[in-house]
Amino acid sequence: MAKLRAGIDLGGTKVQAIIADARHKIVGEARYATPTTGGADAVVGALVAAVKEAAELAGVETAELAGVGLGAPGDVDDKKGTIDNAGNLAGFDHPVPVAAMLKEELGVPVVRMGNDVSVATAAEFELGAGRPFRSLLGVFWGTGVGGGLILDGQEWSGRGGAGEIGHMVVKEGGARCQCGRLGCMEAYAGRRAMEAEAKRREDEGEKTILFKLMRSRGRDRLTAGIWNRALADGDKVARKVVDRAYVALGAGVASAVNLLDVEAVVLGGGVGTKLGDSARARLEQEMAPHLFNDDRPPQVLLVELGDLGGALGAALLVKRG
Amino acid sequence: MAKLRAGIDLGGTKVQAIIADARHKIVGEARYATPTTGGADAVVGALVAAVKEAAELAGVETAELAGVGLGAPGDVDDKKGTIDNAGNLAGFDHPVPVAAMLKEELGVPVVRMGNDVSVATAAEFELGAGRPFRSLLGVFWGTGVGGGLILDGQEWSGRGGAGEIGHMVVKEGGARCQCGRLGCMEAYAGRRAMEAEAKRREDEGEKTILFKLMRSRGRDRLTAGIWNRALADGDKVARKVVDRAYVALGAGVASAVNLLDVEAVVLGGGVGTKLGDSARARLEQEMAPHLFNDDRPPQVLLVELGDLGGALGAALLVKRG
Repeated sequence: MAKLRAGIDLGGTKVQAIIADARHKIVGEARYATPTTGGADAVVGALVAAVKEAAELAGVETAELAGVGLGAPGDVDDKKGTIDNAGNLAGFDHPVPVAAMLKEELGVPVVRMGNDVSVATAAEFELGAGRPFRSLLGVFWGTGVGGGLILDGQEWSGRGGAGEIGHMVVKEGGARCQCGRLGCMEAYAGRRAMEAEAKRREDEGEKTILFKLMRSRGRDRLTAGIWNRALADGDKVARKVVDRAYVALGAGVASAVNLLDVEAVVLGGGVGTKLGDSARARLEQEMAPHLFNDDRPPQVLLVELGDLGGALGAALLVKRG
Repeated sequence: MAKLRAGIDLGGTKVQAIIADARHKIVGEARYATPTTGGADAVVGALVAAVKEAAELAGVETAELAGVGLGAPGDVDDKKGTIDNAGNLAGFDHPVPVAAMLKEELGVPVVRMGNDVSVATAAEFELGAGRPFRSLLGVFWGTGVGGGLILDGQEWSGRGGAGEIGHMVVKEGGARCQCGRLGCMEAYAGRRAMEAEAKRREDEGEKTILFKLMRSRGRDRLTAGIWNRALADGDKVARKVVDRAYVALGAGVASAVNLLDVEAVVLGGGVGTKLGDSARARLEQEMAPHLFNDDRPPQVLLVELGDLGGALGAALLVKRG
């Protein structure tokens, strides 16, 4: 019998671990909050705890696993087994030898790592919405906007930094992005940028229920659910900021399609997944005016693996290894 | 001895034919103006005449050639041997069976066809400035702005329509492009768009020597040489329009690099080749503020094969065939 594999999706807010069998069926899973104090040791501790819990639910010892795959933000170096420059993770401002730490703590023979967005795109390509296609663009709409590319059935990572669709310029001299540059798509469409724009409008006297909703729900940020609620209530600021985000997403994704002529665009990410088909349909609509080959637009689909795509994709890294 | 091959670059203003030997040395060449009257028959007639003249200079009968390669604008269907929708060519508003016509007139066994920009990019990759790289973006700056992609040593054409870098959106809601859409890079940087913008400014009372130069040189359009002359004379309209073009080129090309993380950008095309290293340096400069991985920008190079790249690339199609 083929061995089980673990996959971990490490994000700024959560750690999602799964145990998958040879047919990619999930036989155990666990989710932890990402520690924000305690540095890299605490974060790796959460990875270890999540895998142990998922393995226990699957009825397997971690030492019996074929290996662990990890999708992570920042500079992920699979050869060296390190993660560096992960701004959303406390303690990852220098290379952290995550692979060695996981091997030791879990007793597994193999740890493979990949960029979180690439890993999630590969999962959709192999197991999800991208199965029918040979080329696709994954668009992960969350705090920022990340992109993953499959071209002729292979991941395309360039020199290691491809897929920065959120930093394609959609408006020369436009809004300042979190990255410091002007006019990036993410400066309009990223959840963080949307929140900053709503705040700016409130500060200038426009009325909005967005921040009231945030406080009443005990949240510290404007989640996709809060945006949805405000839109349903006819909140004008929410409407303007969301429209602005879709216009930027449409221009940026259409530009990528004009350059690459992929068969499909697969929309995911925290915001994309939460807003679901309305986001998919609106993205398709906002892309249309910019598509050069407008007689044959790409298919625009939602991710099928949802929240677990990242962890399933991470487990695929082991299969390949 | 390996047979000689012919390559033809078919453009809106000229037909360039070459005869190449097995080591890609040019042993004969001929250039004709592209007929603007007489329809597709006249255009194909010019292709035939150019190949015959180049072959004669090379001391070979066309029937002895291994084959003819053709780079052309519009929808080029190599399997069917047809060219369609080539807006700049008179009589190509329906599928023209160019391959069959060339075979009959020239007595060659093989005719292969490709998109003009892809063919020129492949030539730079195999024989020119792109030789040291495995991935590159060709930027052909002329009447419009075309793009060609080599990824992992292979041409990437998507579903046949990849490389439309000129129609990446650099300014949401911006200037109207020749293609009818808003904010395309080509709407600022294409030679035709630059001329329209200069005309608009002159019509609004701004002073410029651009059109005076055009008339005194007996030209019907603002060539790269005319722009150069006006810039050298301190013409303010020329300066503004050219600056605007470079800003758009920088944003669009940087966006493509952020998405694909290629090793190199190779600048060519009628305008790019004519302006030469000053254009290369300025493109590099205007890309810089938008590059996400700004610690390792791609190399930005000029084409090495110049005007003959298209024809040399076309001849490569036969080698592969």
